[in-house]
This record gives sequence, C-alpha cells and structure tokens, in this order.
Amino acid sequence: MQDTHISLAHGNGGRFMRELIDEIFARHLSNPGLDVHADAVPLALNGNEVLFTTDGFTVQPLEFPGGNIGTLAVHGTTNDLAVAGATPRYLSLNAFIEEGMSIATLDRIIASLAQAARETGVAVVAGDTKVLPRGEGGGLYLATTGIGIRHRHRLGLEQIRDGDVLLVSGPVGDHGIAVMLAREAFGLHGELCSDVASVLPLTLAALECRGLRFMRDPTRGGLATVCHELQRATGLGVTLNQPDIPVRDPVQSVCDILGYDPLYLACEGRVVAVVSPEEADIVLERWHALPLGSAAAVIGRLHATHHRVLMKTAIGGERILEELEDDPLPRIC
Amino acid sequence: MQDTHISLAHGNGGRFMRELIDEIFARHLSNPGLDVHADAVPLALNGNEVLFTTDGFTVQPLEFPGGNIGTLAVHGTTNDLAVAGATPRYLSLNAFIEEGMSIATLDRIIASLAQAARETGVAVVAGDTKVLPRGEGGGLYLATTGIGIRHRHRLGLEQIRDGDVLLVSGPVGDHGIAVMLAREAFGLHGELCSDVASVLPLTLAALECRGLRFMRDPTRGGLATVCHELQRATGLGVTLNQPDIPVRDPVQSVCDILGYDPLYLACEGRVVAVVSPEEADIVLERWHALPLGSAAAVIGRLHATHHRVLMKTAIGGERILEELEDDPLPRIC
Repeated sequence: MQDTHISLAHGNGGRFMRELIDEIFARHLSNPGLDVHADAVPLALNGNEVLFTTDGFTVQPLEFPGGNIGTLAVHGTTNDLAVAGATPRYLSLNAFIEEGMSIATLDRIIASLAQAARETGVAVVAGDTKVLPRGEGGGLYLATTGIGIRHRHRLGLEQIRDGDVLLVSGPVGDHGIAVMLAREAFGLHGELCSDVASVLPLTLAALECRGLRFMRDPTRGGLATVCHELQRATGLGVTLNQPDIPVRDPVQSVCDILGYDPLYLACEGRVVAVVSPEEADIVLERWHALPLGSAAAVIGRLHATHHRVLMKTAIGGERILEELEDDPLPRIC
Repeated sequence: MQDTHISLAHGNGGRFMRELIDEIFARHLSNPGLDVHADAVPLALNGNEVLFTTDGFTVQPLEFPGGNIGTLAVHGTTNDLAVAGATPRYLSLNAFIEEGMSIATLDRIIASLAQAARETGVAVVAGDTKVLPRGEGGGLYLATTGIGIRHRHRLGLEQIRDGDVLLVSGPVGDHGIAVMLAREAFGLHGELCSDVASVLPLTLAALECRGLRFMRDPTRGGLATVCHELQRATGLGVTLNQPDIPVRDPVQSVCDILGYDPLYLACEGRVVAVVSPEEADIVLERWHALPLGSAAAVIGRLHATHHRVLMKTAIGGERILEELEDDPLPRIC
C-alpha cells in the first residue's frame, strides 16, 4: 500500500480498508481457510470435541526482546487451548489500530503473528480491523479467539487430589521483566528475552501421563495467582518450596532492585501442572527432554493440612503468598 | 462490587479483576456453557458444519437510541453468521475497558449484551477483559467472535448469475444517523432509533427459498459498499433503482442537511439478498410477513450489460455510485 501511516479512512469499510486488509493482513496470514470476503468461514471440526477460548492483548511496548504483540496474540490464546488439553486449530484476529500508527511496524507485527501461527499449526481464518482516532488505542490492541480439538477429557480442577504435586516447565517471570526492561522506564537495560512461545509440545508430552490432573499457563498474575486459583477451587492448601522454583539470575536481580516478586510476574511460555505423586517424575522427565522444558522442576504440593498458599523459604521459614491486589506491571500482555 | 469506577487493578489478574468478572460479566452472561475459570470451553457442535466469524466494536457514544455497544457486539457478529446461512450458537467476548469508566454504565451495557444474546439464542461461553490507562480506550471497546451451524451450503458470491435481483429487508441508514444524532455534534436532535437487531428471522425465512444466492448485512460502508463488493466479485454490473430503496424521512432529512448519502451509512439490522428473478417475490413475501421485514423491497438487479454500480434516479437519470473512500461517519460500530 502507498500510505506509510494509518489514517481513519483505513477503518471505514471502503477502498483504504480493503487495501489494508489485503496488503497487510491477508498477505501475511494467507491460508486455505482464510476468506477475507466471507462473513463467516466453515471449520472442519466434525466428530471431535471442540474447545473455544479468547484473549485480548494490550502490551506496551508493542515490540520487546523475544517477541511482540503479534507473537503474544498467537501464543497467549493457543496456549490456553494447549493447557486445556487441546491441539489448537483455528484463530480469529481482531485488530484495533490507532490512527497514525506506522504501517511498517504493523506489517512487522502481523508478519510475526503469521509466523507464530505457522509454527503452532493454527490457521487464522477470520478477522476484523477497526481504526481508532489518534490519542486512543496505544498504537495497537489485538484480540484472538481460538478453536482447538481436545484429545482427552479427564483434566480439570475437580481432578486434583490431596497430596498431588505441582510442577513448572521452566523459569518464571522472564516475560514480565523483558517487557518491563523494554520500556526503559527505570534506566535499567538487559539482554533478557521474553519466554513467549507455544507450550503445545509441553502439554502434549504431559497429556500422555494418566496422573496429569490439571494444567495452567501462568500469565497475568504469575505463578502465585495460579496457586491461589488452585487453593480456591480445591479447598486444599498449596505449599511451594522456594529453592526449587526456577528463576533466572537477571530476573531475580531486577526484582531485587525494584522490589518485585517473580512469582507474581507474567510468563507466556510456561506451564504449571498438577500431577499425581506417582507420576510427577514421569512428567518431569518428559519435560526435561524438550528444549522448552530443560529447567522444569517439581516446586510444591497440594494438601489438606492447611488452606493457604504458603512458601517454604531457603532458610527454612514459611511465608504466606497473598493474592495479587496491586498490579506490579500493568500492560504486560 | 464496591467500586464505582474501573481502576487499573481491575485488569491485573488478581482479586479486583476476579470481582469485576464475577459481578459484572459472569452475573449477566451466566449460562451452562460459560465457565469463567476455564482456559477453554468445550462446544457441542459435532456432526454439523461449523461457521466462525469475528468483529470489533468502537462505537461512540457507547449508548444511543435503540441500543448500545453491547447489543451491537452481539448482533454485529451473529448477523454475520446469519447472512452466511448459519444459526448462531456461541460467542466469545473481549472487553477493553478504560480506567475511570463508570461501573454502572459497564453493568448496563453488559446487561444489554446478555439480553441480546438470549434473544438471539447464543451463549457467551468465553471472555477476556483488559483495562487500559485513562486517556486510551474511549471508555470501552468490545470484540465478539461467533460460532454457528450452517443449514445449507449453496450460498455465496459464486452462486450469483446475470439477471439476479437485489433485495433489501428494510430502510437503510437508521443506525448511522441514530448514532450520529446521539453525538449531538451538529446541534441536531431526533427521535430516530438505530435498527440494531438480529436478522436471523429474516435469513432463516430467505434460506427456505432455493433461488437465494447470497446475503450480506450492510454495516460499515452501507448498501453502496455491498454493491461494490458484488460488482467486484462477480464482474457483473449492479443497477439500483433509487425510488425503490427504502429510506426513512428523518434519515433522508438529516442526510440532506449534512450532505450524507444514506446508501453509504451503516445498518445493523438489515439484510441485502441476491435472489434468482423467479424467486425474488417469494423472498419478498416471506420478509413482508416478519416485523423486521415489513418495508422490504426489490431495489435493483445484477447484469452483464455494464460493469459499474449505477443508480437510476427518480427523474430518470443515472449516476455512478463510487466506492467509499472518505468516511462519512467514523466510529459507527
């Protein structure tokens, strides 16, 4: 397209919008299921159990080490399908684009989104764009809605039993700190990359174990928020063992400087799994065999002896992990 | 909830966000398929042809005579499924909420959205909320993604033949003018209501006719933009007969004052249908029998004698309807 910046006319349903859709969105996202002229597209899903999920993305800045809002929009939503036990198949995409946004930046972001979709094996088959007046919109917001096929059914909070074991697939807090550093808001810089990635290889590996009870990806609110959800849903206490929780040194350093707790920071490529005590080591072994799971660890247990989220510290003490109230890092996803 | 206005903490994944979701979204949208604690929800769709569509909503003001952004978010997306020949079944909902938004207004909008969903027979089964800093976000943006079941298959632009007839189910431009008047931007006031509504009764009635080739809802860009799409896709010329196109008097009056053309204004409860000449009257009769179709009319034809979008005027002249470039009314949906 000839323009270099988005104008309100790119949102009006006429020629400019058609060019925007054809030359940025349809070009990058081209696939046999995508028909930009159709009101609705057919999905080949018959005879399977279909899962459905949606997520919105408002990350600032739009691009950060390891990813951008486009990769996040694919992995955020497809990871929700993966941890629910499904293989993601289809995505829809909503783009709210601010007037004045650089078309080169938009092109880069949609190209990354298309690449992430190909890597994850999902087709973006429906979409919509809206243009917002300058001053609204923070450049770009995205929403993606995903459809997947579920393989097995006995996965859920209600499957969790007293004595079950808690695992995490890798270090926590990378995404939160990488995005925070990309803002350059505190005069801090670093080489840290976001962990944004498809967790599908991890979830498929775990699904082969019968002792797997439940999985979740610790995004907004981080690992601590997943633990509170487990506690609320099961009535069981959660005890984490601090020395076992993988945290990269640069993440811990930034957290120490700024007073953050990495357990409350968003991850975008990690899985928390609850597994029977008999099979926890099997899941751990399977994860260790995968590139994304090399630092996977058993980090705690659920049991009926208390009803809180507690953390045993390295020096042998115990502290309560409170539910998140104040947001440590807004606009992280 | 105790708060009266949205704060950034309502978007952080912790307790405040949980309260917002439970007390506003889950309360209004409650249905057996909705599980606000699940990453993804199962859909009962096996053995049918599944259709999928998405749409974003940025209308200003958020509330207007005849509807609000919530009713629009249901009807806009489910109407896309309806005109594609499907019965809408499931919706996902993304809300981008501006910090400082009145919670009473949000509650009213989500209640309307829930009511519109019930009336249309769709269940909102997945959702996500994000909170944007004050100054971004225009109060509220919504995106909805819909899933429907298709009844018959031979419907599409490729079905259209030389000589086919164009119908519209009711007066055009009501939504555009009602929203514009609600802005009180030109010192104009009026009693006009938006036409926002489910077109499902209209599309189901038309689907019973074998001569039905194609349907579209004339939203952004209006009737003229649908005609351009028909022209581009088929290579046939489109000739509209101006005196036959239903336009309400107050809509025409406002258009005359401000220099708008109602054929380019958004409708949110109308259907444009292309029908074989033999069956056009049957579709018209069926539509006339429905409350939403009482003013339905045959408005033109497609034929190979030219390759433009032309309009025959009341005084016997012909003018070309150009493709929309400049947006007459941004933020209309």
